[in-house]
Amino acid sequence: MNGGDGYQSYAKNSFFQKGAIEVAKEIIEEEISNKLDIENLSSTSTNIIRIADFGCSTGPNTFHAMQIIVETIKKKIEKQLSVSHQMPEFQVFFNDRISNDFNTLFASLPQDRQYHAAGVPGSFHDCQFPKASLHFAYSSFTLHWLSEVPKEVADPLSPAWNKGKILYYGDKNEVFNAYADQFAKDLDSFLKARAQELVFGGLMALLVCSESNHTKNISTITFPSFELLGSCLMDLAKEGLFDTAKVDSFNIPMYFPTPNELKALIEKNQDFSIERMEILNYPPKRFTTPDSKSFAIFIRALIEALLQSHFGSSIMDELFRRYEQKVEESKLLSNPDESSMMTFVLLKCKQMT
Amino acid sequence: MNGGDGYQSYAKNSFFQKGAIEVAKEIIEEEISNKLDIENLSSTSTNIIRIADFGCSTGPNTFHAMQIIVETIKKKIEKQLSVSHQMPEFQVFFNDRISNDFNTLFASLPQDRQYHAAGVPGSFHDCQFPKASLHFAYSSFTLHWLSEVPKEVADPLSPAWNKGKILYYGDKNEVFNAYADQFAKDLDSFLKARAQELVFGGLMALLVCSESNHTKNISTITFPSFELLGSCLMDLAKEGLFDTAKVDSFNIPMYFPTPNELKALIEKNQDFSIERMEILNYPPKRFTTPDSKSFAIFIRALIEALLQSHFGSSIMDELFRRYEQKVEESKLLSNPDESSMMTFVLLKCKQMT
Repeated sequence: MNGGDGYQSYAKNSFFQKGAIEVAKEIIEEEISNKLDIENLSSTSTNIIRIADFGCSTGPNTFHAMQIIVETIKKKIEKQLSVSHQMPEFQVFFNDRISNDFNTLFASLPQDRQYHAAGVPGSFHDCQFPKASLHFAYSSFTLHWLSEVPKEVADPLSPAWNKGKILYYGDKNEVFNAYADQFAKDLDSFLKARAQELVFGGLMALLVCSESNHTKNISTITFPSFELLGSCLMDLAKEGLFDTAKVDSFNIPMYFPTPNELKALIEKNQDFSIERMEILNYPPKRFTTPDSKSFAIFIRALIEALLQSHFGSSIMDELFRRYEQKVEESKLLSNPDESSMMTFVLLKCKQMT
Repeated sequence: MNGGDGYQSYAKNSFFQKGAIEVAKEIIEEEISNKLDIENLSSTSTNIIRIADFGCSTGPNTFHAMQIIVETIKKKIEKQLSVSHQMPEFQVFFNDRISNDFNTLFASLPQDRQYHAAGVPGSFHDCQFPKASLHFAYSSFTLHWLSEVPKEVADPLSPAWNKGKILYYGDKNEVFNAYADQFAKDLDSFLKARAQELVFGGLMALLVCSESNHTKNISTITFPSFELLGSCLMDLAKEGLFDTAKVDSFNIPMYFPTPNELKALIEKNQDFSIERMEILNYPPKRFTTPDSKSFAIFIRALIEALLQSHFGSSIMDELFRRYEQKVEESKLLSNPDESSMMTFVLLKCKQMT
């Protein structure tokens, strides 16, 4: 993600992600209200509720989500507990990778927040908190980020070599499978880590950027925006700005699971029970209302850092100028792709084994 | 403090502060070993020990201090508890003001640390943690930072107007008293906040940059380095780079208490018992071994941000060039001032009222 709060920052270009929590708000409120068993959550004896956002980036989305969660838990406690009972204090942990711009995150923390804030740097594929120290976990539009690009897709000797492409939109099943396998591994490590960190009975709400439940095969792969970006990179390579091998060796560490795939992986993991799972009516149309300029900046805020570290920063302006043009010429924005969607999952942490 | 890890950064110019923890190490180890009552600390039932460094800046000093504390507590637990008892997990909170460079702090976190790390942005004059959530607090070379410059010293209508000076080294008792009063208020708010955050029986180790126990009067005020810096600013003003009123209205929010003063203020607060208090043999000579160039960079790393926000960044190079020259010409480095010292205080948190 692009740090800071400038024109091309994530903070200023995350309208897509912002909509997500709005759409999920009611369900989250309902589920916390029904399923969060305040009285029986272990470790609440000290009267502190600890919440973490995994993959918070820089806000303001994370602040909005945390506010919804804190307020909902407070309301529930007010209703449930006796008048004499003291309202717990809230401690909210903002987690993201070490390279996240925590300085910008901290500088923009809401003044009137009802919680103590802390930033936790580190990959959410590993444990980042002491055992049984969190009561509620949240992660929105983050699980599609893989811990790494599957090695074989960048290996010219592998049948999964992803030549000339930057995501799994090509015609090779091997590439797709390599990405799917990596996602399965990553989701498992994510769930295992959270199962350690959450108290027994703790809840976790996930908003997962996913694809429709079509039978998985190459032709249905969505996110054509990355195909366009890949073709811009190939154009620049062909014009001699860099070798085409540079594109061959670049792959975006992202994967978008189908809801069924997600469900099967969570059930296989066994650390959590699925309390609710829903495909949310999150119209891609809303995402596609911006013009090609805004859309190009949106994608740039998302993955410029990755591109820069591979291709250098000098080509970024030209790359995104061309990208904007291709998006404009394509039918991407006028014919929104109905196969991309958002899946909401509410999980409850089972007793640790 | 200057962020980042460049030539003029705090990270690269905090040798003075680094020495402090080295000198205090043995005492901290001894005191944790004798005074930290692991079994009776409340809130350890969840088997998590929480430690915070208040005013951590960017490291590496804070990492070194936290490592000493974590290792010492671990050793104590290993000795004290039965073999079957599980070693607790450690969670270390790095606190500093919102403007601190947390990005650099997080990027340089030790890979092999034995604790979960979190950054907590916010002034240590306010509560930054839930009640009774910390077991050990630490603060090194930070309490001399005031929450604000006492208002009267920047007020031309006040008898405490600090005209032409940037700290309380002038001949006005009113200026000195305004600074001393602000320190008393700030120390009280610091102790009140920590008393809320620490569990009953929790310990707090403070390393306080202080002055000798001379009868307090203007002539004994130390830290001549700031007097030199002030005179450089006045020189620049007289040469027309800015108005002298700019210097009149600039005051550094720092105050260095005597050990007796510190003791009296802690006793007045009543939230903590003083378990140990010692003037440490921290030779100013060691501090004064660097040449004038290194010394000027050291002071620059410490207060450039403050100076910049008042005078703008364009004069910084010239200011510190002149400062280095004045330090060189002065007897500051060759005749170390024996009246500046370090006070160690170990406090135990009393039951909350």
